Formats: sequence, C-alpha cells, structure tokens
Amino acid sequence: MSEVAGRMSIQAGAHVLEKAQGGRGMLLGGVPGVAPAKVVIIGGGVVGSNAAQMALGARAQVTVLDRSTQALARLDKEFNGAVKTVYSTQDSLEEYVLDADLVIGGVLIPGAAAPKLVTEAMVKAMKPGSVLVDVAIDQGGCFATSKATTHEDPTYVVDEVVHYCVANMPGGVAMTSTYALNNATLPYILKLANLGWKQALKQDVHFLAGLNVHAGQVTNEHVAKALGYAYLLPEIAVANADA
Amino acid sequence: MSEVAGRMSIQAGAHVLEKAQGGRGMLLGGVPGVAPAKVVIIGGGVVGSNAAQMALGARAQVTVLDRSTQALARLDKEFNGAVKTVYSTQDSLEEYVLDADLVIGGVLIPGAAAPKLVTEAMVKAMKPGSVLVDVAIDQGGCFATSKATTHEDPTYVVDEVVHYCVANMPGGVAMTSTYALNNATLPYILKLANLGWKQALKQDVHFLAGLNVHAGQVTNEHVAKALGYAYLLPEIAVANADA
Amino acid sequence: MSEVAGRMSIQAGAHVLEKAQGGRGMLLGGVPGVAPAKVVIIGGGVVGSNAAQMALGARAQVTVLDRSTQALARLDKEFNGAVKTVYSTQDSLEEYVLDADLVIGGVLIPGAAAPKLVTEAMVKAMKPGSVLVDVAIDQGGCFATSKATTHEDPTYVVDEVVHYCVANMPGGVAMTSTYALNNATLPYILKLANLGWKQALKQDVHFLAGLNVHAGQVTNEHVAKALGYAYLLPEIAVANADA
Amino acid sequence: MSEVAGRMSIQAGAHVLEKAQGGRGMLLGGVPGVAPAKVVIIGGGVVGSNAAQMALGARAQVTVLDRSTQALARLDKEFNGAVKTVYSTQDSLEEYVLDADLVIGGVLIPGAAAPKLVTEAMVKAMKPGSVLVDVAIDQGGCFATSKATTHEDPTYVVDEVVHYCVANMPGGVAMTSTYALNNATLPYILKLANLGWKQALKQDVHFLAGLNVHAGQVTNEHVAKALGYAYLLPEIAVANADA
Amino acid sequence: MSEVAGRMSIQAGAHVLEKAQGGRGMLLGGVPGVAPAKVVIIGGGVVGSNAAQMALGARAQVTVLDRSTQALARLDKEFNGAVKTVYSTQDSLEEYVLDADLVIGGVLIPGAAAPKLVTEAMVKAMKPGSVLVDVAIDQGGCFATSKATTHEDPTYVVDEVVHYCVANMPGGVAMTSTYALNNATLPYILKLANLGWKQALKQDVHFLAGLNVHAGQVTNEHVAKALGYAYLLPEIAVANADA
Amino acid sequence: MSEVAGRMSIQAGAHVLEKAQGGRGMLLGGVPGVAPAKVVIIGGGVVGSNAAQMALGARAQVTVLDRSTQALARLDKEFNGAVKTVYSTQDSLEEYVLDADLVIGGVLIPGAAAPKLVTEAMVKAMKPGSVLVDVAIDQGGCFATSKATTHEDPTYVVDEVVHYCVANMPGGVAMTSTYALNNATLPYILKLANLGWKQALKQDVHFLAGLNVHAGQVTNEHVAKALGYAYLLPEIAVANADA
Repeated sequence: MSEVAGRMSIQAGAHVLEKAQGGRGMLLGGVPGVAPAKVVIIGGGVVGSNAAQMALGARAQVTVLDRSTQALARLDKEFNGAVKTVYSTQDSLEEYVLDADLVIGGVLIPGAAAPKLVTEAMVKAMKPGSVLVDVAIDQGGCFATSKATTHEDPTYVVDEVVHYCVANMPGGVAMTSTYALNNATLPYILKLANLGWKQALKQDVHFLAGLNVHAGQVTNEHVAKALGYAYLLPEIAVANADA
Repeated sequence: MSEVAGRMSIQAGAHVLEKAQGGRGMLLGGVPGVAPAKVVIIGGGVVGSNAAQMALGARAQVTVLDRSTQALARLDKEFNGAVKTVYSTQDSLEEYVLDADLVIGGVLIPGAAAPKLVTEAMVKAMKPGSVLVDVAIDQGGCFATSKATTHEDPTYVVDEVVHYCVANMPGGVAMTSTYALNNATLPYILKLANLGWKQALKQDVHFLAGLNVHAGQVTNEHVAKALGYAYLLPEIAVANADA
Repeated sequence: MSEVAGRMSIQAGAHVLEKAQGGRGMLLGGVPGVAPAKVVIIGGGVVGSNAAQMALGARAQVTVLDRSTQALARLDKEFNGAVKTVYSTQDSLEEYVLDADLVIGGVLIPGAAAPKLVTEAMVKAMKPGSVLVDVAIDQGGCFATSKATTHEDPTYVVDEVVHYCVANMPGGVAMTSTYALNNATLPYILKLANLGWKQALKQDVHFLAGLNVHAGQVTNEHVAKALGYAYLLPEIAVANADA
Repeated sequence: MSEVAGRMSIQAGAHVLEKAQGGRGMLLGGVPGVAPAKVVIIGGGVVGSNAAQMALGARAQVTVLDRSTQALARLDKEFNGAVKTVYSTQDSLEEYVLDADLVIGGVLIPGAAAPKLVTEAMVKAMKPGSVLVDVAIDQGGCFATSKATTHEDPTYVVDEVVHYCVANMPGGVAMTSTYALNNATLPYILKLANLGWKQALKQDVHFLAGLNVHAGQVTNEHVAKALGYAYLLPEIAVANADA
Repeated sequence: MSEVAGRMSIQAGAHVLEKAQGGRGMLLGGVPGVAPAKVVIIGGGVVGSNAAQMALGARAQVTVLDRSTQALARLDKEFNGAVKTVYSTQDSLEEYVLDADLVIGGVLIPGAAAPKLVTEAMVKAMKPGSVLVDVAIDQGGCFATSKATTHEDPTYVVDEVVHYCVANMPGGVAMTSTYALNNATLPYILKLANLGWKQALKQDVHFLAGLNVHAGQVTNEHVAKALGYAYLLPEIAVANADA
Repeated sequence: MSEVAGRMSIQAGAHVLEKAQGGRGMLLGGVPGVAPAKVVIIGGGVVGSNAAQMALGARAQVTVLDRSTQALARLDKEFNGAVKTVYSTQDSLEEYVLDADLVIGGVLIPGAAAPKLVTEAMVKAMKPGSVLVDVAIDQGGCFATSKATTHEDPTYVVDEVVHYCVANMPGGVAMTSTYALNNATLPYILKLANLGWKQALKQDVHFLAGLNVHAGQVTNEHVAKALGYAYLLPEIAVANADA
C-alpha cells in the first residue's frame, strides 16, 4: 500500500497544483524554457522512493530529504543521481520546504505517530499556492497543519498553502490496490486453506503473531493489558489446541 | 501551448482514472505485481510526443498511433523503443482503443476541424470506467462523443466512458502557460518595440502575415472575402505607409 | 551459469521466431509502426532477470510473472518500470502465456524437479508459430510438453508451437561459459593449492560440504543411505586425517 | 526494410557466434566478469543505427565506423555516447575489424554496388570463429569474400571466419516485414484507389517517377536507352492521357 | 572544435572548483546527502549541449539558458528533461548566474564578437569561490571581466570569482583535437589530392570560398578592400586558370 | 569519504590527461569520430563504483576489475551493462592496465596496507603520457611506484607515466567533504549530547568500540599491548563508571 500511496501522491500533487484546485497553476514538469516545479519529498523510504519515481517521470526537479545516509545513497544509485539527496536537518528541511512548489510528507515510523516535521511557521512562510500532500495522514500526519480529508473533498487551505490529506489514499485507485493487496495476502490465504488453522499457526510465526484470542483466552499482550485480561502466550494456546 | 496540453493530458487522465472521478480506479503505473494502465495516444505530433513522455514517466504501458511512418520512427528513437508505435488504420485504431484504459486524442490538423477518429460505436465498446481525454477539443474534438467542458466541471460520462474535454487546457496551469507564451512572443515584441511597426512589418514576413487592416483597407484576404470588402496586398499597404 | 542461460534464452527465442525455424516470422523488437513481439518470462530469479535484460534490449514487450512480490518489486526497480511485472496465479499465467509470442520458462527450484507451470492445454491454445524456450530443462523442464534437445537439433513442434529445450544451454557459448566457470571456481582452486586439501577442508565449510568419501568411509549422508554404507560426519573424518 | 535488416543482423550474428554454428562460442553480452563480444558496424546509416540499437541492447561492446562526421555525431547523440564512433579510414577500419568478434557490413550506396571495404587479406587476419554479417549482400556485398546465401543454409566459412550473407534478410521475419511494407505503401495505394491512376500520376510526382510505359511509349529513360526505344517524358505521356 | 571545448569546459570548471585552485571546494556532483554544484550554461548550441552532457554525467544540477525556444526544446528532448531549460532574459540570466557555483559561457555568434552577457555587477554579486569558464574567449569572451589566459596559467580572480579563460582550449587535449580536425578536413584533402587544385576549385564551392589570391589577383573581397587591391571574382579567376 | 575520493579520482585523472599536466592530451570522452580514453578501475567497491559513475558520465570507455564475482554482478546491474566488468587475475590485470589511458587504483582493504597490484614492470610497459591515480595512497598505495603527493604539487612522472597520488584527496573539495562528514557523524554527536557519555557508551556498541582509555585504565586491546599496559574490557570499565 505504501507503493500505491507514494506513486499516487505525485498524481494528487500535480492535480492540486492546477489553478482550478487552488494551486500555483504550474505544470509539474514545466515545458522547455519554463522551469519545472520544485518537488521536495520528506522521507526516503518506500513512499519517498515511489514518489520520487513519479515526480522524476513527470520531469519535476526533485529533492529527497532523509536522516539516514544509507537511504540517501540507495536513492542516489536507484536514480543515477537524477534526484538531489539532502541530509535532513532542521536547517535543510526549512530551506527546501520554503523553496518548494510541492512537498510530499512520507515519513512513516511503524507503530508510532508520524513526527510533525513541518511546523506552522514553515507553512506560513511557504509560497502562496504551493501544495502539501501528507501521505502519513493515517498515522496523524507529518505536517503540523494536517487534518484528514476524503477523496470526495480532498483539500483545504491554510495560510494560502493547499493541503491534500486524504485518509486511505490507496482507496482512490481501488482496482490497483485490491490486486496489490491480493498479491500480498494470497500466499497466506492459500497456506491457511491448505494446512487448516491449527497447522498454519504452528508452522508459521506470522500467523501466530496475528492470533488475538483463542478458546476464551487472550493471546495478544497489548489487548490483554488494555482490557484487563490475563495474557496467554499464543504458542501455549496453540499447543493446547492439539490435545 | 501544444507542449503544455500534451503533458497536461496525462495528468488529467491519471486523475480521472481515480474512482472518485468515475474512472476504473487504476493507478497509471500500477505497482510491482499489478499491471499498469494501457494508455493509447492517437497522433504522434507535439501533443502526442509530450503525452508519451509523461505517460512513460508515470510507468504506464504506452502505444502511439499515427499515419506517418516518419513520425513513428522519430518517436521510436526519442523513447529508445519504450513506447509501442503502431501504424494507424481503422483496424489498428479500433483494436487499441477498445483495449485501452486511457485514450488521448491528439490529432490536430492546422486550420481544420479535427477528424472524428473514435466513433460512437467504439466508445460504446470500451471498458466501463475507461477515460477519454480530447486535446483537440478546441478544434472540435477527435472523438465523436466529445463536447467542450471547463476546468470547473471537466468531465461527463457517455456509455460508462468518462470524457475529459476541457477547452483551453493550458489555462489550468496559467503560470506555466504564461511564461511559455512570453518566451514564444517576446522576440516579436522586442522587434516591434525596437523597429517601430512600419519597419517591423517590412523586415519580417511574420508580422506582415498578421496585418489585417491598414488605413481603412483590409489586408487579410479571408476577412475581405467574408465581409465583402476589397482586399489589398499587405505588402502594398505597407509600402504606401512610407509615403 | 544461470546468467548465461538466461541471456541466451532470448537469443535462442529470437532465432526460433524466424520463419525458417518454424516461428511466426516476427522480429523480437518489431520496427517503428509494427508492434514488437510479446515476451513472457515465467520466474523472476537470475534466469528471468537476465532474460528480461536481453528481451528489453531487443525492444520486445516484456512481462515477468513470479509468485514473490519482493522479486517483482526488485525487477521493477532494476528496469525502472520498463518490464511489466505480474503476480503469478493460474489465471494470470494462462492469460499471458496464451497472448505471448515467446515464452521463457525460468523457474528453477534448487534440488527439485521444476514445476510444470504450462500445461498441455495451454500449449494447445497458444498461437501457431509461437515459441517456448525451457531454461529449466536440465531439471525436467517447466512446460508439460518439454523434452530435452541438443544444440545440433534444438527444436521440435507440438500443436504448432515450437519448443526449444536444449539441455546444457551454456555449452553453446563455450568460451563465455568457461571463463564464467573459471571466475567462480578459481578462488577455491587457489585455496586448495595454497592450503593443501586437509587444511582447506578444515578452514572452509564449502569444501567440507563437497567431501563424499574419505579413507574408505562415506562422508555424504545421501550417498551412504543410497548405497547402504555407514555414514561418517565429514568433520570427524577430517579430524582423523590429522592424526 | 533497412530497419528490419539492421535489427536482424545482430540477432543473426549472435546466433552464428554460437559454437554449434561455427562461431567462437561467445555470448554477445558476456556475463559479469567475462568481457562481452566486440561488435564492429561499418556504416552509420539506417542499417547501422538499427544494428547498434540491438547490439547495445544485448550489452555488446559496439563501435560504428563511418566517413561522415555528421552521421557519427548523430549516433553519439542517439546513444548518449554508449557506442564508440570512429571516423572510417583504411587504417581505422583494419584496426577495428581485426579486433572484432562480429562485423556488420551495412554500407549501402543507393543505386550502386556496395564498396568492398573488407578485403580478403583482412578476412584472413581475423580471429578464428569470428563472424561477418553482410547486410549489403543484395547489392553485391561489402566484404570481398561475400557471396549470397539463403535462410535455409545461411552461412559458409572462409579462412575460419563464418560468413552470414543471406539475400533478402527481411524475408526471414515475413510477418514483421509484411506489416512494415504495408505501412510504407498503404498511403500510395489509398491515393491510387481514391484518385484513379490518371489523377494520381498528375498530382504526385512519386507516382510519375514510377511510370515506365504508357500507351506503347516508354517513359523511363534508362529502360528506353537500354532497349533502344524512343523516350517520352512521363509528364507529356500523362498529359496526353487526358485528351 | 566546439565539441572539444564544450566538453572540456566542465572538466576545467570541476578542477577549478577545487580548493587548491581557488574554488569553493565543491565536488561537481556532490555525494549522496550533499547537494551537487549548480552549473549554469549560457548558450544552448554545440558548446552548450556538449557542456551539458558532461555536467549531467558528473551529476551536477544543470541549467541551460538560451534565447531560442527551439534550441531549448531540442535540449529538453536530448536530455529527456534532465537539464532545466530556461528562456534567457536579463532577469533570468541574473537570477541563475548569481545562484550558480559554475557558469559556462558558450555563446558564440559566427564572425562576431561574443556579447558580454555577464556584467561586472553580476560578477561582483556572485558567491565567493564560484567559477566562470569562458568558452567564447577566442571571440572576445562573453563575460565583461574575461581576458585570455593560457594552459600554463589558466586562471585569475576578480571579485573573489575565479575566471578560467584559456584561449585555444582544444589545444590542451592535442591528441583528441588533432584527430577531430583530421576527420573534419580529410575529405577535402583527399579531394584536392585526387582532383588537383583546379578541378577541386571548380567542382566544390567550399574550396572556391577559400581562395584568396590567384595569379597575382585578389579573389577575396574583404582582403581586397582592406589592402586597397582590385577584387576579382574567384569563379572568373579559376575559369582563366584553365586557358 | 570513499564516495568523495572515488568521484574525485576521475576529475583528477581527466585533468592530468591534459597536455599541460604531462598527460597524453586526450579528452576523457573523445568526441564523435575520435575514440574516448580507456579507463581501467581496479577494485569494484565504493571507490570503484563512484569512479565508474563519473567515468561513464564523461563518456569514457570503462573497465572495472575485481576478484569478487558478486561485486562485478552488482556493478553490471548498477550500470546496465555499460561498464565492462572483468574478473581480476594477474593476466587480465596486465592486459587491461597496459592498454589503458587512465588507471584508477581503488583497492582498499580495511585496516591493512593496500596490495601492490600494479608492478614497476607494468608501469614501465604502459603508454607514454598515460595516467595513474592512486586512491589507496593513504594506506600505502596500490601501485608499486606510488608515493604520496599534495594538492599543491599533485603529480610526478615515472617511466613517462604521470602519477597522481594526493594524500587526503577529499581535502581538495573541503566544502563537500565537510558536509559529508557532518552527515555521517551528526547522529552520534546528537546521541552523545542527549544521553551523556556514560549512557551513550552503554547503549551503543559503536561508541564503546571507540573508548581507548577510562579512569586511568586502557580499554583498547591494541593500545594496551603496544604500550605495555594492562587491558580492561571497555564493558567492565563502563559498568564501573556507574558505581
């Protein structure tokens, strides 16, 4: 799903940059003689890499910021130097965001709220009509001014900066996302069907990690703690299931 | 302007392919494991070449049809074989349009109405949710079902096929288009300012070709005929201007 | 050797597609205005990736099928989206094989017979003159209709589909294969020469894994079992060698 | 047809370089760690440019020789410097041909016998098992040792160098060539059908240039001279046809 | 020679940007995480296109300015959008030059002094340690602060900006330049040798255009005028030579 | 820093190949019609890969030698076959070095003197004016004839071969190198500042590995042995620090 969201973020950003959507009225790639839009991508993971592919493909001028030199070196190789990779500090972040026409927020920390990297002051200082796309919105968003929107009403404006913060972005391209999800889950479904649930839980720790409740006993530690139940190791619950 | 419209047509088509706009819910480039959209571009001129750049950049599967083998060979070289180039016949046109997810109509014949290459029957036979973008709409459109729309209300549906037929597409990215227009006209404006209108008309046939009326005499043949006035050769009108 | 076989499979397929070899009489890459051949590569490992390199290089239209989304994502990056990557299911396999002009079978499961992914029914339904190249033939082949052939008489026809199933394909380019083999084995030979066999066996588990018999005792478990001999751990056999 | 022949020449050369066909047993592109074959293409026109595309695509090391610096600059741009372009002199030709694994002869001078650029002495000095493909064979060939062969028996050996000199190479991929020919001729056929032969001859000098005999009078100068007939200007013959 | 000078200008600029040569101490392409140098190329002709090739190859961030939209469109195609093309106005020139780390002056107007596009004020406003390379120096230079230097002592500093203004830049790579010159002149030398000077002058207007004096009569108009001699049409002089 | 040195080595080599620096007077990439320089890079690690990027970018003909087939396969993928990868043996090394115009020595074995891969005899047999750049000079150099030089006086000549052996090459582009170093060290500095030295040493083994002396006790084994002190495990020293 990160691949879908990363690729879609540029398509969304390009659309919102049109005059009728409140943007600066710029074509992402410009035309010969007219400079292209400056796209700044915060985060060089799966979202950032897929967004960079699309932005480069549209002939924009692309900069990716990240705090991992390894991630930046990987992107430099992937794109043969065609994206500018910049180590992310408070300084560099501010410099590039303020100069950008389109900013993609793609910082996702698994299991944690996304950090608010772009502050209200930075948004206020951005160019009128510039666009923010927050791909991290499902985890709270990585811009201070982000709040979730829908595919039906995708944007709002703060300090003349257009925000696109659609929750569940991949839902907008349901056909592509459904196939992608099928591909990712099919091997597990086949295993479940072939082995039955008991064997599947025993043979594959990924299944086991997904077991929450078994025979009246809570086998997920977080759930048990949150609801005040006793916690049973899933390995033991499954072993009992055999008897 | 053809460059702007050609590049913008893919951005528009990608947006309309989203579920919320009535499209099939496909991501133009798919993701690894999920096949990309099939983009068919009718016409391999400036519009078609720029549309192909953007569609390839978005990782779609791109086919360009044209009736000039020279145009197709030029595109093959430009894209190093990455676009499929197909000689346009009634047969091949029908085969590719019916299989397409997104069709770009980019056939512009200077000074003539665009030919209606995609018939109503073909539209009826297309996949539900597929998208037509008619870049030739300012010259009447090259799909039988095209009628002009606006940036505010850009699409309508015929036989489950979404039509995007915005007149004056470049107006949607006004900043880019204005600069592009400036670049194209600036040399003429400078000449006019430096030489004065008399010298400019004498030294540059492009100016002369734009002269419609001079000192009460019509110097444009079409205008003279249409309005029933006598026609004066602009060369003569300008020569008289000196006396 | 998988690199050699993968690259060679396209060269073989292109040749067999010629009319004189029984193929459809198609040029792999077509020419401008004439659509290229559709090449379907089953398996996205070393064979598939090298075949895809060559097929793309010849300007064919290339689809790779695999059951690993990771493998597909890796190929998508390697080829910057220029190959279509499709998750392999019975359905998608049938759809793409039936539409193909050239199918490369590159599914190799180490130490196991290759799975018969293309059935007799699918072969029967393929286009007359289309071509199958079975790179997995040394492990039994991955088409139901495959049987091993030689470089001297490389092809046969089943249901109007030409089969190229040469065993030991790399033998056809002996000079390249010999150098490739030398490069892969030279470090081991140098080690053996420098350390002597006893030290080499002790210091490098790769050597040890290759020891079958020592001082009259069988040190390979499979061989011992198959022939009814006692099995001695190679570590122990080598330790004894020192005494 | 030059596009077909140029692309096919590399496919033929790669096949003949295999051991079973008498070649050196090299894979055109080598594999990592094993150097690729050296492909030398004589002539940088349509044949040479298409051959270079395919040879580069197969990851060979490609040098193109030509006597036109413009042609070489064009190829340098087309391939972004990935082919080595060398000005053709007797010296440079000998240096590169003697070092080559595969030589493509693609020098075609319209309406003239191809020049014999590679001499018998040069062939004698080439490496055993190296391969010559003569795309100019339909005009006599551009190697001194060339003589026409067929798709059924395509090669012969002179001084340990394998010669592939198939006349009518495009005939080997009949389907592709037929479509290519259709695309090139269809516009003329449509014109002929729509206008009738008289109007077609009058409106289009290409038709007129193809008129050999009309109403018993020879309208082709070469034919008239060769057969001892009077020659009538085709323009006059056609004008008379109207009366 | 423009190709040599254009390619060499980037190599010179990269060297001068090193700390020991007085430059900013920047690597043209940066490294992952450190932004590359900004290279601004004034003029999109042969010099500019070759400079852009090298600068892109070194992974710099490249902008080309020119006053011809056709030239910019050609560069956009040549580099697939990887260089930023900007229409040159006084404003855009100033904006990009002041922001640049390396500026290449490649504006050559045949037979005229190069225009002084970069003024003293602009040089004064550039960043300390930035570098100017004036490829037009043999025609007077296109920076106001340019004066010719030599390969032995190639640079000088004005307002903390390092100037590289070596006259006859191609002389620095004498081997390459000599071959390039040979390739360009050889066809003429062969013609002269084969035909003799009289026939060569008659058959080839390029030779005739180079004739300055014949049989005591001046056949070059500029020379005749400058030295006060009578001028004889070279065609007539040559015709007399026959008698 | 290896990235900086690798990229800079080609820039240095290109400069030294100029006539005025004693080189052959060749342009790295040649021009159309004039063959490019042959660049041989010994070692396919970070230095070699970055040098190859720059050499390819300058349109040179690039060969990389390495003794790891994995490294060569990785480079083949990274550059899509555009560099020639050759398995390094004494034979192949000699063959390619003797034929080279520019040799980059990039073999760095962490914590060991670089091996002398290019012997005095090989240097003597190289072409006059060819260039050696020794990136391994800080570890003793990998050419037998290498001795360290400075940015102020970077080269010397042995047997007509120009040697560039500047110690601390990255110092020549101080601005780029400083940023690169900051990016690599900043995360550690922040950790140290946030946690204090005790916690930092406890939580991060990379810090611990850098501890040499603590509270009068030597915690680095090599230092202890070399100076005759007792050695204390850093873990124990740090644990005591808490008490």
